[in-house]
Amino acid sequence: MSAVFSQADHRYMARALQLAQKGLYTTDPNPRVGCVIVRDEQIVGEGFHLCAGEPHAEIHALNDAGEQALGATAYVTLEPCSHTGRTGPCAVALQEAKVSRVVVAMVDPNPQVSGRGIRLLEEAGVEVAVGLLESDARALNPGFIARMTQQRPFVRLKMAMSLDGRTAMGSGESQWITGPEARTQVQRLRARSSAILSGVESLIMDDSRLTLRAEQLQLNNADQVVHRQPLRVILDTHLRLPLAAACLSEPGRTLVITTSDHLEEKRERLTQAGAEVQVLPAGSDGRIDLVAMLQWLAENEQVNELLVETGATLAGAMLDAALVDELQLFVAPTLLGGEARPLFALPGLSRMADQRRLTIHDMRAVGRDWRIIASPLATSASGEFCESKVP
Amino acid sequence: MSAVFSQADHRYMARALQLAQKGLYTTDPNPRVGCVIVRDEQIVGEGFHLCAGEPHAEIHALNDAGEQALGATAYVTLEPCSHTGRTGPCAVALQEAKVSRVVVAMVDPNPQVSGRGIRLLEEAGVEVAVGLLESDARALNPGFIARMTQQRPFVRLKMAMSLDGRTAMGSGESQWITGPEARTQVQRLRARSSAILSGVESLIMDDSRLTLRAEQLQLNNADQVVHRQPLRVILDTHLRLPLAAACLSEPGRTLVITTSDHLEEKRERLTQAGAEVQVLPAGSDGRIDLVAMLQWLAENEQVNELLVETGATLAGAMLDAALVDELQLFVAPTLLGGEARPLFALPGLSRMADQRRLTIHDMRAVGRDWRIIASPLATSASGEFCESKVP
Repeated sequence: MSAVFSQADHRYMARALQLAQKGLYTTDPNPRVGCVIVRDEQIVGEGFHLCAGEPHAEIHALNDAGEQALGATAYVTLEPCSHTGRTGPCAVALQEAKVSRVVVAMVDPNPQVSGRGIRLLEEAGVEVAVGLLESDARALNPGFIARMTQQRPFVRLKMAMSLDGRTAMGSGESQWITGPEARTQVQRLRARSSAILSGVESLIMDDSRLTLRAEQLQLNNADQVVHRQPLRVILDTHLRLPLAAACLSEPGRTLVITTSDHLEEKRERLTQAGAEVQVLPAGSDGRIDLVAMLQWLAENEQVNELLVETGATLAGAMLDAALVDELQLFVAPTLLGGEARPLFALPGLSRMADQRRLTIHDMRAVGRDWRIIASPLATSASGEFCESKVP
Repeated sequence: MSAVFSQADHRYMARALQLAQKGLYTTDPNPRVGCVIVRDEQIVGEGFHLCAGEPHAEIHALNDAGEQALGATAYVTLEPCSHTGRTGPCAVALQEAKVSRVVVAMVDPNPQVSGRGIRLLEEAGVEVAVGLLESDARALNPGFIARMTQQRPFVRLKMAMSLDGRTAMGSGESQWITGPEARTQVQRLRARSSAILSGVESLIMDDSRLTLRAEQLQLNNADQVVHRQPLRVILDTHLRLPLAAACLSEPGRTLVITTSDHLEEKRERLTQAGAEVQVLPAGSDGRIDLVAMLQWLAENEQVNELLVETGATLAGAMLDAALVDELQLFVAPTLLGGEARPLFALPGLSRMADQRRLTIHDMRAVGRDWRIIASPLATSASGEFCESKVP
């Protein structure tokens, strides 16, 4: 299925990717997809998927193109579906509109259906080319891909720290380390996530609401975006979450994950206070099994992107277990000193050979703060470093 | 003396600044100065100061211009001198060459002679304009300006750290946190400095040589640059420096500063091992008085730029005493964990209100590492923040 793509192909697919991006904060749990239909070197139809329950990108673009779709080329950022959903399979719709060529950025990551839409089109005599700007298309949907291929979410760990790597004073005092621009970026990270994960310790300390706030998002469609509040997930082995926790009275759902199936009365009271409580198995250390927890979230809550906003202990445990796909560090231009709280607890790390290497992808100013995007490097058995597999 | 400068004026002074930069690693303890002579919109002479004992920039440029200096405009990044040195006063040389106009970026920062060169020229009928690209000119010579106006060096604190703000494992193991490109940048910081300051604890731990190495500088004139090794200054209250310390057998001088005037035998042995020992007063805490030490270095060793390469304790003490003008942090893309050594000991810092705010001036990739240039913000008595006075 390898193909040679023209400059024009690249341009139209780039436009389709741009359209897909418009669904960044709203398509969950569906993938972000864009589509452009081109005839005689003119864009005759454009579309993107806005949110679950609304038509797919291809249908919008075909409706936009009308009869001009005849003999046209369709550029789609994700393989058209072959299953009958609310609107029928998009592959059939493209074929019925008599497009003559379909250019696909990436195949469907779901191994159950991958390649079916392409085959359906090819069998109907439509020329199909796959793989144009594929890595950009994959970057649009890291969570959807992780869920489909690994049955777990894409895990993004966000931390706010001082330049000397501290998150709070020794006392726990931490308000306003970073400025309003950084907080807007964090709001947007929440908005693109299916769920936000925090440890109960952080909740007790900071009483965070873990919600989207329209005024902080600084988006034109903020009101539409906050319509879907990401699921709040709190890891709480011993059910210590206060019944008066701020997040329990916010719009959206709060899911408390515990291993304590015997604390029935506390579960009951948390449920009455607005939480949902889920008992999951404990790991060998008696704490919630993080791998099982991620799997559960993917399978039962369709969590694509999971934003972790928590303290040094849970953050360190997630890193230690190699469960973090991306790190976003917001760095404030300040020093909190050697007695302040560390960024990550990484117990047992005592030799330089044990250090956790990262790849830094981006470092840029956000107001008076700086944002660093990095991903952990996995250590292979031979001791050499290799990129962790970000889908 | 305010003046309106043309676009051409800006262009020629920018060239003079570029020329001055060529002396960055060699003029010490003199300032870096560049000069351009322009007649009929043509550059007819260029010069810069290379090193002490060689002619000043103006003399090189006048020699280059020859008879074409007649009626020309001279652009100089620093006020021409009025004193008779090895080559006679530059102000007189410019006047004798019959230039008709002199444009000066900044006046001489030495309050003893400031304005004299300008007055000498004006009295001879030469038109003088001052202040073009002044802040760029000042940035060339932060140390010379600090020494002339505050009788202390410009203090640049360099640290290498992990992304979570750690400099070494808990055991002290620290080799190779940053990569070769970062080490080249550190070599260049050393090369532009008059002296390198370190605490004896760091020397005992790392046995650093604190020297310039031609092969690591990656400069065309590296052999010329390493000809002058920056003075190595070691703060050693109790004279604990090992006689076998690597730095003692390197080219260049090692100055051990102590408060212990009674340990005569150890002083004798250190002197035999290659050190010079200087007794300075102790502060109220029994340690070397940092302000007195900086003053002593400026007065007795003509130290313009001082590079501090040391551990968390001395670095923290320098920051705490508001003696750091610039921070250069080399950040490696790795995590060392919460048990590793902190960047700065800042004892007594326990409330967010006590945090040490910084201004970040630059953040950029250096090989696989990142370099952050920042400067501390001073806290005024009223509790508001103001920029620390970087000369």
